[in-house]
Amino acid sequence: MRILAFFLSAASIWAQRPAAGPVIVSPEVHADKRVTFRLLAPQATQVMLRAESMQPAKMEKDEKGVWSFTIGPVRPDMYSYSFSVDGVTVADPRNSLIKEAVRGGPASLFDVPGEGVAFHARQDVPHGAVHEHWYSSKAVGKTRRFHVYTPPGYDMDPRATYPVLYLLHGSGDTDREWTTVGRANWIIDNLIAQKKATAMIVVMPDGHPVDPNSADPAARGQNTPLFERDLVEDVMPMAERIYRIRREASSRALAGLSMGGGQTLAVGTKHSDKFAHLGVFSMGINERNSNAALMDQLKNQALNKNLQLFWIGCGKEDGLVEGARKLSETLKANGVKHVYRETDGAHVWWLWRTYLAELAPQLFRKTS
Amino acid sequence: MRILAFFLSAASIWAQRPAAGPVIVSPEVHADKRVTFRLLAPQATQVMLRAESMQPAKMEKDEKGVWSFTIGPVRPDMYSYSFSVDGVTVADPRNSLIKEAVRGGPASLFDVPGEGVAFHARQDVPHGAVHEHWYSSKAVGKTRRFHVYTPPGYDMDPRATYPVLYLLHGSGDTDREWTTVGRANWIIDNLIAQKKATAMIVVMPDGHPVDPNSADPAARGQNTPLFERDLVEDVMPMAERIYRIRREASSRALAGLSMGGGQTLAVGTKHSDKFAHLGVFSMGINERNSNAALMDQLKNQALNKNLQLFWIGCGKEDGLVEGARKLSETLKANGVKHVYRETDGAHVWWLWRTYLAELAPQLFRKTS
Repeated sequence: MRILAFFLSAASIWAQRPAAGPVIVSPEVHADKRVTFRLLAPQATQVMLRAESMQPAKMEKDEKGVWSFTIGPVRPDMYSYSFSVDGVTVADPRNSLIKEAVRGGPASLFDVPGEGVAFHARQDVPHGAVHEHWYSSKAVGKTRRFHVYTPPGYDMDPRATYPVLYLLHGSGDTDREWTTVGRANWIIDNLIAQKKATAMIVVMPDGHPVDPNSADPAARGQNTPLFERDLVEDVMPMAERIYRIRREASSRALAGLSMGGGQTLAVGTKHSDKFAHLGVFSMGINERNSNAALMDQLKNQALNKNLQLFWIGCGKEDGLVEGARKLSETLKANGVKHVYRETDGAHVWWLWRTYLAELAPQLFRKTS
Repeated sequence: MRILAFFLSAASIWAQRPAAGPVIVSPEVHADKRVTFRLLAPQATQVMLRAESMQPAKMEKDEKGVWSFTIGPVRPDMYSYSFSVDGVTVADPRNSLIKEAVRGGPASLFDVPGEGVAFHARQDVPHGAVHEHWYSSKAVGKTRRFHVYTPPGYDMDPRATYPVLYLLHGSGDTDREWTTVGRANWIIDNLIAQKKATAMIVVMPDGHPVDPNSADPAARGQNTPLFERDLVEDVMPMAERIYRIRREASSRALAGLSMGGGQTLAVGTKHSDKFAHLGVFSMGINERNSNAALMDQLKNQALNKNLQLFWIGCGKEDGLVEGARKLSETLKANGVKHVYRETDGAHVWWLWRTYLAELAPQLFRKTS
């Protein structure tokens, strides 16, 4: 076979890069918490800014072809955004802070600092480490990946053992986003440094054993049952073999956001003998998950005996808040103890970071 | 301060996403090794395809607003690409394989399988793990990051010790790219499974202690000296504390591509008592690095005593090949033993993957 290849010298490859134009700074976070976004696109006819928690906005072009728009003042936190250039979604080419995704393409992130240092900022405290592991999942029949956070000092004392939080991502994300966007590692680092949380290991599995882009609804419907088997039969044994993880239920928590909240609900209430702490973020009971098995699990009086904490949180502006209320009402009617927190916010990452920071200090306070 | 927030329900956030249009598959790798790229952009006036190792190509629009272009047949390997939409660089929104960068924005990757399984593919063999560590660099005065690969079985025998390869990235990349784009972990996994390479640990530091986007040339000129101190005083002691790394020079290698090749040359020939194996990929002597100190180091006869392998490789179509030839000629004139390999290819990632696969089996064959 004839293989075509158009090899260019290094010099000409660099020359393909856009020629040096005006110096573009984007995003620019101002002292008054306004944020200016800029994009060099002289040939574009329309550029929109789409930022998390905001209405889409038309950007304006100057005489040099730089489109810009200023938002805010913005509530201090980290947010994702992208540009839409003549209808095409674009991450900000001037910004190296990227959020990956399994669909929709990458987005960019911006961070608006508040008074003092944010609870999710990389502060000057001892840092844990983040590990990526690949494994051959017997349950799924594929090679899969999970991420693990180990707390500061993990490598100092080879005899120390730790409780574990299994932390699940949302639909369209991967096992990486709880650290890159969710800042779970910095959040836990900071809580440990302030002695607000117990040093813990966090295992972040991949919640998409079935490709979410699959055109087959029957296959997609098998996602939660497959995830349950993958977690219990593959991920947990491997994590417990590699890391010094305590194995009693009182030292295990399961929590997740959105789709991962649904998985926490389905798997955690079924296996309450394995996880004494559950955290359901921005999810509840809806038409898709309210099957007979789940409704039975929510009546099981073993939940009161096994669970030390059943925490449910949802934003008032979240489209899923009705389902979260229904979940809390169902548990109440069934006499199942739980904490229900309805907070400000919609279906957005800043909320899930605050939920993790609220949940983590409540975990592993009693040992069996 | 009044904080503006435009909170939307989850439902309306999803509704902001582009409405369902034609089903777009991109990239589509055909059986005959041609590759079709597609982008939905009905409002764009020009869309270009920029793929690694190829001339930029104008894509063509169909009546549904889908731009497409087919290349190849393409030499089997993995390549990066992006679209230029009315002059703005865009990663492919249909492709979750992303290459991050510290400048220029994210790009996408496509993989053309060859006959059999690629040496850099994730094969059905035991897999090592990849670890991210943060540390407070005394040399640089910043919190920095490095990545570590541990080989399959690392967690099985707590007494086993391993040789170490310090592997350096190129300008504009980060300590993450040797695994995401360079596939160093799969390459070493496969070589170990085939018993072609010794099980080793790979430490991948961040080669940009100075921001490469800095407008200050004097600051940028301090990058290599600062990197040297950071590596020797911070990264190596921390890696050796956390991992079971052998510490004799014969069990240590230093290698890197492009800028990382220059760092290998500068640091490795200065500290040949610490590293018995050097690999310089796609770099040589040029106007920027041929200072008196480096030229003296290249004359040092201790190199012949200390080094078991001094490997230099460069592509014939690389704009830097003249510098690589000059490096080899200088070493020859100085009587310094080395291997000089001039291969096909330009200044591109597929070449560096083959160089790693060629170098790794030659490392750590003799122990001191």
